[in-house]
Amino acid sequence: MAGNLLIGQSGGPTMVINQSLIGVVQEAKKHPEIDKIYGALNGVVGIMEERLIDFSKESNETLELVASTPSAALGSCRHKPTKEDCMKIFDICKKYDIRYFFYCGGNDSAETAHIVNSIARESNYELRVFHIPKTVDNDLKVTDHCPGYASAARFVAMSFMGNDRDNASLPGVKIDIVMGRHAGFLTAAAALGKTSDECGPHLIYLPERHLSLDKFAADVKAAYDKYGRCLVAVSEGVCGENGDPIMKAYSNETDSHGNIQLSGTGALGDFLVEELKKRLPEGIRVRTDTLGYNQRCFPGAISEIDAKEARMVGEAGVRFAMAGDLDGSVAIKRVKDGDDYQSDVFLTELQSVAKYTKDFPEEFINAEGNGVTQAFIDYVKPLIGTLPKMGILEKNMVEKK
Amino acid sequence: MAGNLLIGQSGGPTMVINQSLIGVVQEAKKHPEIDKIYGALNGVVGIMEERLIDFSKESNETLELVASTPSAALGSCRHKPTKEDCMKIFDICKKYDIRYFFYCGGNDSAETAHIVNSIARESNYELRVFHIPKTVDNDLKVTDHCPGYASAARFVAMSFMGNDRDNASLPGVKIDIVMGRHAGFLTAAAALGKTSDECGPHLIYLPERHLSLDKFAADVKAAYDKYGRCLVAVSEGVCGENGDPIMKAYSNETDSHGNIQLSGTGALGDFLVEELKKRLPEGIRVRTDTLGYNQRCFPGAISEIDAKEARMVGEAGVRFAMAGDLDGSVAIKRVKDGDDYQSDVFLTELQSVAKYTKDFPEEFINAEGNGVTQAFIDYVKPLIGTLPKMGILEKNMVEKK
Repeated sequence: MAGNLLIGQSGGPTMVINQSLIGVVQEAKKHPEIDKIYGALNGVVGIMEERLIDFSKESNETLELVASTPSAALGSCRHKPTKEDCMKIFDICKKYDIRYFFYCGGNDSAETAHIVNSIARESNYELRVFHIPKTVDNDLKVTDHCPGYASAARFVAMSFMGNDRDNASLPGVKIDIVMGRHAGFLTAAAALGKTSDECGPHLIYLPERHLSLDKFAADVKAAYDKYGRCLVAVSEGVCGENGDPIMKAYSNETDSHGNIQLSGTGALGDFLVEELKKRLPEGIRVRTDTLGYNQRCFPGAISEIDAKEARMVGEAGVRFAMAGDLDGSVAIKRVKDGDDYQSDVFLTELQSVAKYTKDFPEEFINAEGNGVTQAFIDYVKPLIGTLPKMGILEKNMVEKK
Repeated sequence: MAGNLLIGQSGGPTMVINQSLIGVVQEAKKHPEIDKIYGALNGVVGIMEERLIDFSKESNETLELVASTPSAALGSCRHKPTKEDCMKIFDICKKYDIRYFFYCGGNDSAETAHIVNSIARESNYELRVFHIPKTVDNDLKVTDHCPGYASAARFVAMSFMGNDRDNASLPGVKIDIVMGRHAGFLTAAAALGKTSDECGPHLIYLPERHLSLDKFAADVKAAYDKYGRCLVAVSEGVCGENGDPIMKAYSNETDSHGNIQLSGTGALGDFLVEELKKRLPEGIRVRTDTLGYNQRCFPGAISEIDAKEARMVGEAGVRFAMAGDLDGSVAIKRVKDGDDYQSDVFLTELQSVAKYTKDFPEEFINAEGNGVTQAFIDYVKPLIGTLPKMGILEKNMVEKK
């Protein structure tokens, strides 16, 4: 089917979301059925405002440099379109003779794609609609994992490797707050920074378990007594004993998806430091860092496998679009696991990814609820690439004179 | 002179302080005059407690892996020794037949080295005392720059490159808090993350200029009006109009050097966000990150030149110690600048580095007091190595239909 292609990016950026974008663009160029390749600035907002760019005017050099650059090159948005918005998007598609619509984002983007697709089908307008998955939270259904997650996990793992050495240098309690909203995948990746039993993170708190501040302080105290220090990973979405995110008390902002603000503030870490200080013996140094937006945009922690897979889902989307009357969300499956890790793509229905998110598996959480299991390590390790090695002195003590 | 060597590490760790440590150890092994090579755990604290390790029992593989690992492998301390402490350190030196004492740290460490050296000279005990410089703050006197600074600057520059792309994806105001205590060197390095006029950081606030919250808000508003967004770098040590660090209000901890706690909390960023929100038009998204301890320990941002120079000052210290009746602090000078950058070492008196710190040069600050000059860029650029390239789409707009 001859026509134009339109692609947009949505939601929180990742380090590799531009690989998916450029994957779509470069693959689309190979197919004569596709005439113009348009990019929507700021996702659905830009579509409704007809702010479109022409990819044919971008040099190949620029496109490939953009591919390896973190964050959404087209601009992103946090807008969840209403049914009326989706009608408008469909009208724009007709107006610009769009026959291939690609939307790269999380589960809300899959839902948008699904609604636009339904409207097109009801109107007998031939429109191939594809959702390209991305999220550092890794909480999309069906796919084994989400492009963007592994690079964020790599940044988190490397941060904990470094922070563990820093904490060993100047012992105390250190709490690092990790992104991931209400899913524990990214915080759990802190465990990859642990290179021996002595090394941290010594404790990991996920949003899937309610946090009792007293139990938290007791855990920290026990680790401190054992190791003379304690490095802790806490999810930004961690909930108190009442089941509400602790950050709810600090957030007076919600986006159009109804999400409260979790990132872009140090409030959770500072709160936990104060609560710990009340409960720990005096004189213990307690510090916090919120790893922040670097987790999704630092240009020095991209996982090669993540970059490759993000590109792959973009390219595959276009090939699926060429293969017939298909719509869907492009998903990843493992073909080989462990050291020989290999993956492939498949197409899943838009509805299967829309609306709901994937839970962090129960079998990935330890019995105490303050760490992860080997099953999780086996799941995530092949995705993030080789980590730097940390050197630790054996420290043979000289006999005192 | 035959005898043993003792080395300790002090103060806030850096990404390359272990290069200096291993530089001393590996060079010392080459000299038969040096018998045992001891390491003090946790700096002067470990010396006074006789917690020493024997480097001969560490494998070469471990030593070289430690060299490339961030943070102080021997452990560090924040203790500023009294005159009595220095007497005790001297006694330990005599007891263990230490003839070569190396102390790696900032200006307080140089002062410790100077006092121990004076005591030894007064006692006619032959002791070669060397200070090996390190600090991410880059505020030591005499030396052109300090080992540890360039890697921290590299992390800061890369963070701003990524955060600029993130801020362009989801426009708003973003404030990133940077380390450096009361010197602007590290915060200024954010400017290296700016890849074009459109790109951020759009504003940089150093501790050398007092911050008026109204002027700050007006600057941010002007940048936001011009670019549709605004990325800001603020030093953790930034002072209010009364000349006191803003963080003073949030700190109830001081170390034995009398320094207030600046790092390990998100309080400054959160304060600035609230103050900005009061002064900016409603509806502008304002977020903050505190770049945190990753600036001194992230294992993926080490500057090759920094690593090489940190090793060089350690090795050179041992060679100076072998050359005669010398003591001092090892300093760096530029031999060639710009793209052909080359450096060399020289020895300076311990007193010349002790007690006082170097000010950030006035000619590095722009007239408005909210940015840096080309002179600063020329100073820092050769030190941090090649930065990743950021790809930005040209965005040729499609004519609206």
